[in-house]
Amino acid sequence: SRSINLAVIPGDGIGQEVVAEGLKVLSAVLPQDVKLETKEYDFGARRYHATGETLTDADLDALKQHDAILLGAIGDPSVPSGVLERGFLLKLRFAFDHHVNLRPSKLLPGVATPLAGQPEIDFVVVREGTEGPYTGNGGTIRKGTPHEVATEVSVNTAYGVERVVRDAFARAQARPRKKLTLVHKNNVLAFAGHLWTNIFNQVAQEYPDVTTEYIHVDAATIYLVTQPERFDVIVTDNLFGDIITDLAAAVSGGIGVAASGNINPSREFPSMFEPVHGSAPDIAGQGKADPTATVLSVALLLRHLGYDGEADRIDEAVAADLTERAGQPARSTSEIGDALAVRVAG
Amino acid sequence: SRSINLAVIPGDGIGQEVVAEGLKVLSAVLPQDVKLETKEYDFGARRYHATGETLTDADLDALKQHDAILLGAIGDPSVPSGVLERGFLLKLRFAFDHHVNLRPSKLLPGVATPLAGQPEIDFVVVREGTEGPYTGNGGTIRKGTPHEVATEVSVNTAYGVERVVRDAFARAQARPRKKLTLVHKNNVLAFAGHLWTNIFNQVAQEYPDVTTEYIHVDAATIYLVTQPERFDVIVTDNLFGDIITDLAAAVSGGIGVAASGNINPSREFPSMFEPVHGSAPDIAGQGKADPTATVLSVALLLRHLGYDGEADRIDEAVAADLTERAGQPARSTSEIGDALAVRVAG
Ligand SMILES: CC(C)[C@H](C(=O)O)[C@@H](O)C(=O)O
Ligand SMILES: CC(C)[C@H](C(=O)O)[C@@H](O)C(=O)O
Repeated sequence: SRSINLAVIPGDGIGQEVVAEGLKVLSAVLPQDVKLETKEYDFGARRYHATGETLTDADLDALKQHDAILLGAIGDPSVPSGVLERGFLLKLRFAFDHHVNLRPSKLLPGVATPLAGQPEIDFVVVREGTEGPYTGNGGTIRKGTPHEVATEVSVNTAYGVERVVRDAFARAQARPRKKLTLVHKNNVLAFAGHLWTNIFNQVAQEYPDVTTEYIHVDAATIYLVTQPERFDVIVTDNLFGDIITDLAAAVSGGIGVAASGNINPSREFPSMFEPVHGSAPDIAGQGKADPTATVLSVALLLRHLGYDGEADRIDEAVAADLTERAGQPARSTSEIGDALAVRVAG
Repeated sequence: SRSINLAVIPGDGIGQEVVAEGLKVLSAVLPQDVKLETKEYDFGARRYHATGETLTDADLDALKQHDAILLGAIGDPSVPSGVLERGFLLKLRFAFDHHVNLRPSKLLPGVATPLAGQPEIDFVVVREGTEGPYTGNGGTIRKGTPHEVATEVSVNTAYGVERVVRDAFARAQARPRKKLTLVHKNNVLAFAGHLWTNIFNQVAQEYPDVTTEYIHVDAATIYLVTQPERFDVIVTDNLFGDIITDLAAAVSGGIGVAASGNINPSREFPSMFEPVHGSAPDIAGQGKADPTATVLSVALLLRHLGYDGEADRIDEAVAADLTERAGQPARSTSEIGDALAVRVAG
């Protein structure tokens, strides 16, 4: 019989509330014969304040035992900026080699967008997750003096770029439009730009049915608001991916519905699924948070584990729910979760 | 008697057409007693193909003699990506220490925006122009092999950051709302992020009447499409500035109206003014290009040289013209230039 052994990290702020709804929908969608085991981990601001720890080697060993990880949000104003981001979120992405950071953007009917004219938006960003300017390379000399120099080193390897480019080509080929856009800034960042462009062009030869294009990151932000329908699959570097996926989320319904997967396709380590939004401490504990992004992250998780039918059911339930919600008074976190649980079970 | 000794670089593609209109409006707006001298320089793709040169030491010596530089656009598909960008545009910014890259965004009445509901947009981005990931530092080992490693080094100095942060505070203080936003990614790029944040907070103490805020670059792209009215002055790093100013241009009327100044406030070297758009080879020579961005760049140029009244007249003429144009059939490049010349002279 089948089973899912899930690590659950509610985290900080609204993380607690949205993860509860994500689990509710997960339980409702799984067939009887799938045994769902969950273990909750208390990472985040409380643990940091209590112990000074963000993510220890023992934590990583424990997390490794799971099939996948569901995360709510990590981050709190009481912790200095960067401590939990680098000490937990990025540390986990690097430790588990989550090199495919998958972020779909789909504007569903009736969903509010800041763009005029309700454009068609249905693309997915494959953001590299383990290289680029995120490696923590760099340093500071003469700190705090008028002669301080601070560097940040973006590290890019053929190994790291090729595997994520291959993943993106495979995803593009599996979609009806079969189009892949490389987003970089190769006219300025010539070293990294050459590596990305060269590998992209080489791998493209193995995918003659995939249409390819190259767009500079600055121009990409223009197209994301003027012609978002132009994109199908985008592959890009860690930092550019960070930036354009927040913009993509904003134009396709907001971060309330933006899901993401931090995926290790080799399955050597468990992949982690999380909403793109943060811990939103200003609305935490009030039942105001939209759990949809977490529920959609659960769908990505199920797809990663091979439960495609169940993932489809969640996606369809969310689409129906969002359409129904349009123009209605706001529902609470648990009301949305309940409605989705009923839909996916039905 | 007063005089302006202007270097004119029409450049490639639509650069030629839009610069002609910029000069037309400049001549029309200047009082009789101001002697305008212009000298045209043939930089860009043609010169590169003919001589292999992009910008020589002798060129820089010649350009240094001028009070300011007006540039149309540089870039052509016949030249490999990056050659003219790095060999001319960035080389000039670095050689003349253009550390204040000024990019105003104002959505004028009647001007089309991809955003729903015609939000109020009136902010200016002060983009650092001589540091960050634009310095060309970095390199490649094992090029073209499966073991290639390519690095890009973002270089940030207290000297470089402080001068641009000071410039931005002064600009914020001079505006009615007196608000300055620092955009960076200090939770991930901790070395550079600390330098920027620290200097920003230090200089802020000298400007108690300026309201300050810090926003991560990814979140900034969200606010630019959901709450652009939140911004007054933004100060940011070279690469983040590149990205968010294209997005800012897109939401505030498009790159057809986005002006920029590459400014050396010390006036040790001439400053350069250019539209944010590129050479648009697809529409070059057809009279379709909108010269408004170039004309607005002429206004920035005049303001830099102390001709504030004339700069205001151009800004007002452009606002009136854009409002009049709304919903009308498109006019040609020279028709728009003619109309603006008439307005500023009137
Ligand atoms: C919190 C931060 C470290 C993170 C990132 O920059 O990757 C976030 O913005 C994201 O996109 O997941
Ligand atoms: C052409 C390119 C080098 C340039 C830049 O990246 O600065 C352009 O995008 C700009 O914004 O002026």
